[in-house]
Amino acid sequence: MQIIQYHYRKVVFLLRVPRHIGIIPDGNRRWAQDKGYEKKDGYQYSLTPGLHALYLAREYGINEITYYGFTTDNCKRPRIQIDSFVKACVDAVNLIAKEDVSLLVIGNKNSPMFPEELLKFTNRTNIGRGGMKVNFLVNYGWDWDISNLSNNAGRKSILDGLYSRDISRIDLILRWGGRKRLSGFLPLQSVYSDIYTIDDMWPDFKPEQFHEAMKWYNMQDVTLGG
Amino acid sequence: MQIIQYHYRKVVFLLRVPRHIGIIPDGNRRWAQDKGYEKKDGYQYSLTPGLHALYLAREYGINEITYYGFTTDNCKRPRIQIDSFVKACVDAVNLIAKEDVSLLVIGNKNSPMFPEELLKFTNRTNIGRGGMKVNFLVNYGWDWDISNLSNNAGRKSILDGLYSRDISRIDLILRWGGRKRLSGFLPLQSVYSDIYTIDDMWPDFKPEQFHEAMKWYNMQDVTLGG
Repeated sequence: MQIIQYHYRKVVFLLRVPRHIGIIPDGNRRWAQDKGYEKKDGYQYSLTPGLHALYLAREYGINEITYYGFTTDNCKRPRIQIDSFVKACVDAVNLIAKEDVSLLVIGNKNSPMFPEELLKFTNRTNIGRGGMKVNFLVNYGWDWDISNLSNNAGRKSILDGLYSRDISRIDLILRWGGRKRLSGFLPLQSVYSDIYTIDDMWPDFKPEQFHEAMKWYNMQDVTLGG
Repeated sequence: MQIIQYHYRKVVFLLRVPRHIGIIPDGNRRWAQDKGYEKKDGYQYSLTPGLHALYLAREYGINEITYYGFTTDNCKRPRIQIDSFVKACVDAVNLIAKEDVSLLVIGNKNSPMFPEELLKFTNRTNIGRGGMKVNFLVNYGWDWDISNLSNNAGRKSILDGLYSRDISRIDLILRWGGRKRLSGFLPLQSVYSDIYTIDDMWPDFKPEQFHEAMKWYNMQDVTLGG
């Protein structure tokens, strides 16, 4: 567990910081429709928020961040939307790959839905000076993840058997777009996660939302069910 | 999907009702401490809320309800607390077993923590005229549940391989006690569940909390990730 200091109005506060956060960047299509754009056009506005979240996580000293890119479920949508969110994911990963991070793209790559441009990141890669672990789920499916299990005896064997075994337990999940659910996001790394929902849509990301989430997390207890 | 009518101030509303709800009855210990009781003494106040939830679910025409009794994680607590929550679960199941329900108690029964009195309900039992499926998790562990998997190829095989295979996908989870997390509650039946948190502690259960949850659920969309 990590404790940081922060200063507010000349007072020093201590903050318990999550080690690993998950980001569910929902609401791109609703945001686009509200603006009078086509649904597919929302995704291109998701890139800047993604970088902002990364910088904020780094400032807080968070060790690991996992982005919910797109899922096998998402691929049931109209082709024009799929093309758009796949492109946004490729662009987002390429932006992240200009930072000092330890990058992993993970998802079912034995599928035509997996973008070729991202294959090179499907083994963890230290970029620049390395640093924060950044995981990006691309063509991820909870059932695909679990389909890799061979030895199910015990918690450690289960977690070590997942395709996503290199992604650790998640302390805090931040979901934009108002929904209060996981939507298949890493179900076994999320069994004990605190889930914080931001009502604004992801393209309306603001640093204050992130700060509020951190303050909220600081007030939760951590029991791991015990 | 089921739609019911309800009447309020002479107006008829249509309500989309969840097929299956989960109940996480948290906050018994905090409630007891607030009252000046010992932590262990909170559990005995959890029985009446459990029955109320059952009656309300029946009124709404909900098909299936799953209670989070206690978990293998919970058994790391002091013995005096364990004895108390195990007794509360046995009492709760015995109360439910006086209703017309289709009852299943599920959890790791190959453990001294599993109360013998409940073994008779570990195969689904129609009581009275039968009716609503009522599942009660007793000495449940998410890792125990998954440890039964043998064939992991595909969503159906995974769900059919769980120890909890007789518990269906959950539409809505109601959690009392203010926490916003699943705490290991049926992770694979919960991948798409909407999670509604009630800030009050479980012994402070009120029907209004249940009604509010149903109204909130009615405003959510159901996409199953698509």
